[in-house]
Amino acid sequence: MIETIEGGSITSVAGFQASGVACGLKGDNALDLALVHSTAPCHAAAVFTTNRFPAAPVLHDRALLVENPAGLRAVIINSGCANACTGDQGIKNTERSADLVATALKIPAESVFVMSTGVIGAQLPMATMQRGISLAARSLSDDGGHAAARAIMTTDTRPKETAIRMELGGQQVAIAGMAKGAGMIHPRMATMLSVIVTDAAVETGLLEKGLREAVEHSFHRITIDGDTSTNDTILLLANGIAGNAQLATDDWEDYRHFVEALTQVCTTLSQAIVRDGEGATKYVEIEVRGARSQDQALQAAMSVARSSLVKTALFGEDANWGRVLAAVGYSGVEVDPNRTALWFGDEQVVENGQPLGANEDKLKKILSCIDIRITVDLGLGEGEVVVWTSDLSFDYVKINAHYRT
Amino acid sequence: MIETIEGGSITSVAGFQASGVACGLKGDNALDLALVHSTAPCHAAAVFTTNRFPAAPVLHDRALLVENPAGLRAVIINSGCANACTGDQGIKNTERSADLVATALKIPAESVFVMSTGVIGAQLPMATMQRGISLAARSLSDDGGHAAARAIMTTDTRPKETAIRMELGGQQVAIAGMAKGAGMIHPRMATMLSVIVTDAAVETGLLEKGLREAVEHSFHRITIDGDTSTNDTILLLANGIAGNAQLATDDWEDYRHFVEALTQVCTTLSQAIVRDGEGATKYVEIEVRGARSQDQALQAAMSVARSSLVKTALFGEDANWGRVLAAVGYSGVEVDPNRTALWFGDEQVVENGQPLGANEDKLKKILSCIDIRITVDLGLGEGEVVVWTSDLSFDYVKINAHYRT
Repeated sequence: MIETIEGGSITSVAGFQASGVACGLKGDNALDLALVHSTAPCHAAAVFTTNRFPAAPVLHDRALLVENPAGLRAVIINSGCANACTGDQGIKNTERSADLVATALKIPAESVFVMSTGVIGAQLPMATMQRGISLAARSLSDDGGHAAARAIMTTDTRPKETAIRMELGGQQVAIAGMAKGAGMIHPRMATMLSVIVTDAAVETGLLEKGLREAVEHSFHRITIDGDTSTNDTILLLANGIAGNAQLATDDWEDYRHFVEALTQVCTTLSQAIVRDGEGATKYVEIEVRGARSQDQALQAAMSVARSSLVKTALFGEDANWGRVLAAVGYSGVEVDPNRTALWFGDEQVVENGQPLGANEDKLKKILSCIDIRITVDLGLGEGEVVVWTSDLSFDYVKINAHYRT
Repeated sequence: MIETIEGGSITSVAGFQASGVACGLKGDNALDLALVHSTAPCHAAAVFTTNRFPAAPVLHDRALLVENPAGLRAVIINSGCANACTGDQGIKNTERSADLVATALKIPAESVFVMSTGVIGAQLPMATMQRGISLAARSLSDDGGHAAARAIMTTDTRPKETAIRMELGGQQVAIAGMAKGAGMIHPRMATMLSVIVTDAAVETGLLEKGLREAVEHSFHRITIDGDTSTNDTILLLANGIAGNAQLATDDWEDYRHFVEALTQVCTTLSQAIVRDGEGATKYVEIEVRGARSQDQALQAAMSVARSSLVKTALFGEDANWGRVLAAVGYSGVEVDPNRTALWFGDEQVVENGQPLGANEDKLKKILSCIDIRITVDLGLGEGEVVVWTSDLSFDYVKINAHYRT
């Protein structure tokens, strides 16, 4: 049984301490620097952006995981500056940040993972970082998870965190995660920042396999604006403190159980990101079923989820179902117009490709809710998927028109 | 020499008459039905949407061109209703529209091309269409081109038309076109409605080849919102009245000359569409050069042109160059961050992947103009391309939030 820990955070997991401090990177005294520390070395796995201009910390972390995949001790995350497109100086600043954390915590520099988020193209102010890291190290505590989750926010309006506990090989283990992200969100090509921690003992290769599977069904099924950041990283740390027999092969029932729980944590964080999408007024589930394959279902659903015209119609609470079909139609998947069906909520508007003349009053009521479900049945096969997206509002434009200023 | 005809329209071409009338499809007495008629049978070529839910008129026209590629006489175009996702009744209504035009003009039904644009999912009101077609037929005139260009508008704020003349084989010939389109605009997957007419004599196969080439360099290089309509069609009619020796092989210098002029007409119409993009306040040229290939240049440029984050920053007149690089970075093309350069106008902001600390006052001035050029040099090869796009403004959201109502 997977049990949610009410009010949980990453410090709900044994052996993890955290802090979130304001050091002046963002101004107006907002929390802008998070530090996560594990008392025991962690096996680690990560999923990184596929953007061809990876930020300095992404380059640093990729190399780190190859070099030291089972000895991670700390993660330093700043908001307010992405340290992306910053050239050689950016790399030096990332390394210097890791060194500062290592010195403050008396751990090896090659055990420090670095993440940055914020404006692209600006250099990290290192004097500020130095003061901040010193403060963050002194502030580490067993209940610092909530502050850390706040410190990594950029245009987010609220922190995103979740924690669960379960039994694994007769031992209680916990998995908890935090995430940030409200714009530049599009899957597969990339994701956002997220740190997930567990006290379960999991072999490194298996940790990576499990993370990829969990991400495939969660972070890779959301889109806000179709843009892909230069910094996106999901990190999973396992310190093994729970004392379960180390998960070592993927045919164990315990491993399936662990991945199920990990997927639940990732799904909760993904959905929280969509609910807090930049300018979002709607939380929209797009279900595509009856596709020729699972991949085709996902391709069609993401095409609808990404369509600016569908998203503006949802903002306007207009049941413009033709735009949904149009987005399916240009997604590249196989369709037979004469077999296609479409619903808003439980109100069917298209059957066998023909408009049914649906009840506009009922549609209006369905679209006036915050949570909206759109279902498309292609009538061709067994492929089905659900993805999550937000609407496209005036506020999305407002937030992004003057982001640097 | 290719000479622009000032104030020209499709009726600037010999043998073409047109009309644009208000028949009540759009309400508020707006022009909503256009008719184009050629006194001589036309060779015809067309490019259609690749959307898998093609509208009824697209299905009709595709079959028509196979059956009768050298005998077209008329085009009927209504706005206010796309006749898309309308099932069997939609097909019947399209055929009936063609029949009504054929009867009114005493021409064969299989010589009438049909186009529709407007709301998806609504049926054409055929009693209204019948009255409208009758009126449009009576209104045909040798200077009706401007009215026709107005009658095909939907969210367009102004008509788009252009006309040129040139010499071909010792004869004066003209090419003219009109287009509509302000949203649901994205190339390759589709385009918009456009009718281009010429009095040049061109063999049908060659007409199609020339149209594809011209479209590749014009309509396929614009994007407004990345959505692809169910109705998009570009039709090219050649009635041969100019009396030039019929263009019959693609190695004639005259053919190259004709395609060059046709490309100019298509480019003018494409750029007019972008300038009138839904809610657009900016007209943006994205140039990518130094790409490994021409295809890679196009792929990178379209990724930038389509990015919601780049487009909102342009609306906000914010030189957020990091978003431009991010969009290149997730476009899938080969890049070397250390060789990349970027300019807004003539102000360079990135060199060898490093920010130059550009003059913010100068950038502000450049971005305050309506016409903005962004140049990215990937430093890898000879591939280069220019594409055109608009910004993403509050008004785009406003126009599309309540389109049906």
